[in-house]
Amino acid sequence: MKDITIPGGKNAEKARKLMRVFSPLTGTELDGEYPVARSEEVQYAVEQAMAVYPVFSTTSGAKRADFLEAIGEEILALGEDLIQRAMAETGLPESRLLGERGRTVGQLGQFAAHIREGSWVDAILDPADPDRKPFPKPDLRQMLVPMGPVAIFGAGNFPLAFSTAGGDTASALAAGCPVILKAHEGHLGTNALVNRAIRLAARRTGVPEHVFQYVVGDGYITGRELVAHPGIKAASFTGSFGGGKALLQVANSRTEPIPFFAEMGSTNPVVVLPEAMAARGDVIGQQLVWSFTLNAGQFCTNPGLIIVREGEGMQKMIDAMHQAVLARQAELMYGKGIRTNFDARTQEMLQAKSVTLIGKGPDGGPLDGQATLARVHAVDFLIQPELQHEVFGPFSLIVICPDDDSLKQVLRSLGGQLTATLMAEERDLADREDILAELVNRCGRLVWNGVPTGVEVSPAMQHGGPWPAASDSRFTSVGTQAIRRWVRPVSYQNVPEALLPKALQSANPLKIWRRIGTEWTKEESGMRNQE
Amino acid sequence: MKDITIPGGKNAEKARKLMRVFSPLTGTELDGEYPVARSEEVQYAVEQAMAVYPVFSTTSGAKRADFLEAIGEEILALGEDLIQRAMAETGLPESRLLGERGRTVGQLGQFAAHIREGSWVDAILDPADPDRKPFPKPDLRQMLVPMGPVAIFGAGNFPLAFSTAGGDTASALAAGCPVILKAHEGHLGTNALVNRAIRLAARRTGVPEHVFQYVVGDGYITGRELVAHPGIKAASFTGSFGGGKALLQVANSRTEPIPFFAEMGSTNPVVVLPEAMAARGDVIGQQLVWSFTLNAGQFCTNPGLIIVREGEGMQKMIDAMHQAVLARQAELMYGKGIRTNFDARTQEMLQAKSVTLIGKGPDGGPLDGQATLARVHAVDFLIQPELQHEVFGPFSLIVICPDDDSLKQVLRSLGGQLTATLMAEERDLADREDILAELVNRCGRLVWNGVPTGVEVSPAMQHGGPWPAASDSRFTSVGTQAIRRWVRPVSYQNVPEALLPKALQSANPLKIWRRIGTEWTKEESGMRNQE
Repeated sequence: MKDITIPGGKNAEKARKLMRVFSPLTGTELDGEYPVARSEEVQYAVEQAMAVYPVFSTTSGAKRADFLEAIGEEILALGEDLIQRAMAETGLPESRLLGERGRTVGQLGQFAAHIREGSWVDAILDPADPDRKPFPKPDLRQMLVPMGPVAIFGAGNFPLAFSTAGGDTASALAAGCPVILKAHEGHLGTNALVNRAIRLAARRTGVPEHVFQYVVGDGYITGRELVAHPGIKAASFTGSFGGGKALLQVANSRTEPIPFFAEMGSTNPVVVLPEAMAARGDVIGQQLVWSFTLNAGQFCTNPGLIIVREGEGMQKMIDAMHQAVLARQAELMYGKGIRTNFDARTQEMLQAKSVTLIGKGPDGGPLDGQATLARVHAVDFLIQPELQHEVFGPFSLIVICPDDDSLKQVLRSLGGQLTATLMAEERDLADREDILAELVNRCGRLVWNGVPTGVEVSPAMQHGGPWPAASDSRFTSVGTQAIRRWVRPVSYQNVPEALLPKALQSANPLKIWRRIGTEWTKEESGMRNQE
Repeated sequence: MKDITIPGGKNAEKARKLMRVFSPLTGTELDGEYPVARSEEVQYAVEQAMAVYPVFSTTSGAKRADFLEAIGEEILALGEDLIQRAMAETGLPESRLLGERGRTVGQLGQFAAHIREGSWVDAILDPADPDRKPFPKPDLRQMLVPMGPVAIFGAGNFPLAFSTAGGDTASALAAGCPVILKAHEGHLGTNALVNRAIRLAARRTGVPEHVFQYVVGDGYITGRELVAHPGIKAASFTGSFGGGKALLQVANSRTEPIPFFAEMGSTNPVVVLPEAMAARGDVIGQQLVWSFTLNAGQFCTNPGLIIVREGEGMQKMIDAMHQAVLARQAELMYGKGIRTNFDARTQEMLQAKSVTLIGKGPDGGPLDGQATLARVHAVDFLIQPELQHEVFGPFSLIVICPDDDSLKQVLRSLGGQLTATLMAEERDLADREDILAELVNRCGRLVWNGVPTGVEVSPAMQHGGPWPAASDSRFTSVGTQAIRRWVRPVSYQNVPEALLPKALQSANPLKIWRRIGTEWTKEESGMRNQE
């Protein structure tokens, strides 16, 4: 089974550039060569996606649900091979990858359940009124429809859950959009295995083969080609600010601009207030260190800024953090570049004006990320906006605010965030009510007395926040609402029953929740067209 | 009462550029001078909007509803003054303006009812599960929140319904976003009157004065300044493709890109199939001419392309259209530029290869738009993509398709459209089922056996389509769903009841529809936070 159908003969094959994967675990290149897609192959892949779109976009939710569940089953059927390859390619521990596989299969199952139930199409029915003056009121019915073939960029830090068959792919396939994945160069073997699982699932469930394809690229060229292709109608990316912004510009510069969802990470500020610190500063400190060092801090929800309102428990909390950092074993980072970048960014932070190192964890191997904690005074933080840039890895900066005014100034200086966390007692907010509003205005998710890492796959999850955390704060990349990224509403005016999609037919044959007037109902609409 | 507070003293006033409005009705400049906003005034307006945002965004839906209804009342209270001024400024007939005023007040009322009812915030609750392994499941609750101050561009062709207090303003104020309007230079007097109504309504209902402000601009400079300001979090525009595209680029080029909703018009193709033509070709022809010539064709949903599958009734239909065009009195267009552009574009169309004039209506005054109907063969249409560009005014082009293949080729050549219309019998689609899917893939609204003009203000309306009809096909500018353009979802994780917005509190004090799991309910959630 070929991964993508390659036009051209044997001569064409000869000149092909091949990629291999470096293992942070073994320090060597792994087996397996992965051909870089040529322009004509990107073109061909999009054409195939366009060709299957009319059929795939109109398959029933039940059939697409079967497909998604089958993908999950085929991923599990890959067994140890998948886990071992992912470990070798990313250096992530087995327990984490088993958990991530569970999350990936769970996500596929959640989207399957979501589209099998079917109410996600947001059907709205508004009855005709033939007697209205001066003009009769038409029958109008609206629902969400898939936009077309989409491009998805696999993320490096989640080789399963945000990559080949991760949340982006699952949500797009759930919506009825064919997917072309730009495989992440860090785990091409893992990608090839999961691609195989998707292909097998498509065959088993009778879904057109080309609803999922992937391309391998070297640098941004292939990705750019993909996003620029007129047949692609939306795209998503998870990764660095630079990468996301560059691709966003490609999407915006097309003759036909398209929605582009870049989740570019953030510093995920945690605000710690005095009463909470006094009550349990040591516990809060331990929680935070655990959260920012977990899996070498390679999470987009890593708490990289800890904004503390000075109070009696503060020293206790900082001491607890210091101790926890000193005890934290370094962990492998998933790529050489990631590690190099982490070192460089950490150095930049520590060399910034008035930033003081609190402590570092024990040193590890050459690819390990060493837990690092620093502090800075609010005044110095405010005059150095570069301190707000994310450090991807196990680093966090404590910002010390001597009073409420400086705390609010710091909050108002923050850009958009995926998450904002409040470590507080309710009475901490008695005189500081506006802190909560300031945080809500800057984030996609507000966490109360918890840690921002651990993004629940839930219908109520918002993973995505105002710029620069994400390119479009109106959508989420985690949870079932992620399906909304790939769809748009269409209204049907006076269309006869027989020609309407099932979701809009008066009899409600799919038995879904629909909005009629101001009420949500699963009943039939009781207002057939005037025909 | 000053329209906007103007910083600077009397000397500053002296140098100010003033605009006046030319009347297409009288052919003269009307009374009234309108100062062009200086950069510092744009800046000041945005700062005022930012200052009132925290209060306005958290006012209750009931209070904002009172405000919207009061705006409607104050508009009606302007009485004849408003209608006369709008007639003088736009040349639109009194009956049309009375209808448009009704629509404007009606829209304000619909949004008021929508937010008073309150379910529009799309609350989703997902209960905690403290016993889940390996980690407890948090309590997550999501709802839509207003994004911040927004910029709105008044449209020239609807001086009331898509201008100062039109659908864009009504939806943004309903969402809780302060509005800064870029007034349309064609009806500055009408704008000033409606601004007065909004200000009075704000005072009456205790809403902060600066939730609505407007600026006057000369060309695009003021508009660009407004969209580029970091305090503006979203913007909307209704007008030409060139204008919309230029402003979209400004929105995309900001340090923080923002959502930009440009509704740029379209050719609104009407597909006429043989059985329908044979049965009632004459009636269809009359309907279409009425639709494309109404108010000098100055509607974005004007049917500018009539795509006909040849059949026995075709000549009858074209004859009926010819007769109707000959009988159609020319009507005033709302501006000199609009009229000049209409003439130029009509000439371009008539001089294109193999385009034949069918007929023109009687000539009128120098600012009247003359009904014009032309035809072209599908083959010639396909090789001249420029024939797909909108002609704003009473012009329509019949595209004759000798067979189903050429019909499908023509459909596949079309760009995105606000609307697509099918004039057909159900049996016309028996062998042409894919025509419906091709049209749905290209439009925001599919009309069956009707005319695309007349955009119902309905919860099920989608006014907006794929590029180039609109810049973001995922949102509508008409109907209550238009409120979604100004909001984004925020998740609250484990936040105590007392700190949650009312819409998310377990007891459901607002009695709104909320989604819990896969069910919609108005009940309380029955799952209070673990505190």
